[in-house]
Amino acid sequence: MEGRYSRDKALVEEALARAVESSGGPAGLREVMAYSLMAGGKRIRPVLVLECCRAAGGEPEAALPAACAVEMLHTYSLIHDDLPCMDDDELRRGRPTSHVRFGEWKALLGGDALQAAAFDVLLNSDMPPERRAACAALLARAAGPAGICGGQYLDLEGEGRDLTRTQLEDIHRGKTCALLEAACRMGVAAAGGDGEQMAAAEAYGRALGMAFQIRDDMLDELGDQRALGKPVGSDRAEGKTTFLTLYGPERCQTLVDELTAQAKAQAGRFPDGAFLRWLADRLALRES
Amino acid sequence: MEGRYSRDKALVEEALARAVESSGGPAGLREVMAYSLMAGGKRIRPVLVLECCRAAGGEPEAALPAACAVEMLHTYSLIHDDLPCMDDDELRRGRPTSHVRFGEWKALLGGDALQAAAFDVLLNSDMPPERRAACAALLARAAGPAGICGGQYLDLEGEGRDLTRTQLEDIHRGKTCALLEAACRMGVAAAGGDGEQMAAAEAYGRALGMAFQIRDDMLDELGDQRALGKPVGSDRAEGKTTFLTLYGPERCQTLVDELTAQAKAQAGRFPDGAFLRWLADRLALRES
Repeated sequence: MEGRYSRDKALVEEALARAVESSGGPAGLREVMAYSLMAGGKRIRPVLVLECCRAAGGEPEAALPAACAVEMLHTYSLIHDDLPCMDDDELRRGRPTSHVRFGEWKALLGGDALQAAAFDVLLNSDMPPERRAACAALLARAAGPAGICGGQYLDLEGEGRDLTRTQLEDIHRGKTCALLEAACRMGVAAAGGDGEQMAAAEAYGRALGMAFQIRDDMLDELGDQRALGKPVGSDRAEGKTTFLTLYGPERCQTLVDELTAQAKAQAGRFPDGAFLRWLADRLALRES
Repeated sequence: MEGRYSRDKALVEEALARAVESSGGPAGLREVMAYSLMAGGKRIRPVLVLECCRAAGGEPEAALPAACAVEMLHTYSLIHDDLPCMDDDELRRGRPTSHVRFGEWKALLGGDALQAAAFDVLLNSDMPPERRAACAALLARAAGPAGICGGQYLDLEGEGRDLTRTQLEDIHRGKTCALLEAACRMGVAAAGGDGEQMAAAEAYGRALGMAFQIRDDMLDELGDQRALGKPVGSDRAEGKTTFLTLYGPERCQTLVDELTAQAKAQAGRFPDGAFLRWLADRLALRES
């Protein structure tokens, strides 16, 4: 399965590079877009698109425009989250963030352009029109006020306050889960999958997303995100509520295990869910 | 024709209010979105969508989701352009800009959310999937690096320098013309119009857009934009190159007249181009 993951990633990397190159406009703006988009990373979201397409009986390549769109959307949200007026981060994946490297207005515009380019690469692709429209509709919903933007809004609004479990879950359902869930559903939509598969993708993505976030909080605390350029325990130092501060490490591990088991059960509803089961375990056990 | 314009505008206003209300997410974020979206304005772009749909033989109402999408996209770009790291404007249409009213991070997020919501309102509408996909594809192209973002990039990069005619045209083709042109083409796409109508919409939108921008530069200089909250002659005071500084008022007027005549000729290629002809004149003669 590791080999399949690598092949999917390679497919995505190549398609992303092509997408930015051919997106038109000033070369300087494309450079800003490429700097963050081609900075590596696990590419979990686009791999989920390809593999949910395969799990639903489609060819992964058929979902490649949707996979690129999801990763471009994700990258734009990271660039904007890092800006001084938002989280004010200077490092991401061990490199200077976009506004540190290019200045604030270029980072802002590069993010804006990536959001538009995400829809462009999908909607101007050779996927059948109905599937293009279905995938883009899912992406738009996950990106907007009921998804990523809403989650980030609640996160910043709650800064410096103690949050309840419900509030913390609302934040991460928007910031993290919405796009992971959309990625899974877009894979099924790209395959022309049925309602049963769509429901399975939704439940799989939701459980996987929350497990991913809780594991993220644990890794952050354990200092294993140093390679990502984030100071050890920075969230705790800021007095920020995380799943770890709410539950402690043992209860967090139990939650990750439970959610991973849920995700794997949902993967079983697909004609070919083996990779999705493997991926759920891999993410739950990851060390970075 | 003035009555038809008013009816179109009223349709759009009502649909925009509904779109924000039902966009989900935190109420505070929807408030930020609505503040800028419902601040009035001429609504030229959405009216162009409705009227190009009608000109191509469709019902204007059928294009309403596309019309809303264009205006939401336009509004997001204004919010971001006004931010301190971009044009740093404190007033728009006589009211405090979004970041002055809500603070910088809420303005940034409100803009981001409006871009996503623009695609959402269109892609999750009840328009036929192929037409939804076609409209959204046009919108994405106009919004991205080859359109609005590219134009704004060139504009900020060129700040403080003397620009050539070609450079100035490149800026405005991205910043202004791309979305006006897309609005016209989206109207035709919403009507299921043919290639001939699509070409006419493109040429009409392009000529109208450039005439609109040149007239804008003239009005700015003449101080007639006070009502828009922009200081009189602010562009000239900053030493900024505009069509007026390049050509002077007489040559500008000639260009507006020529471009308006071109737009009107293109309107004649539609089954029903009367309103589009009238609108081209109205914009050319506008005093604010």
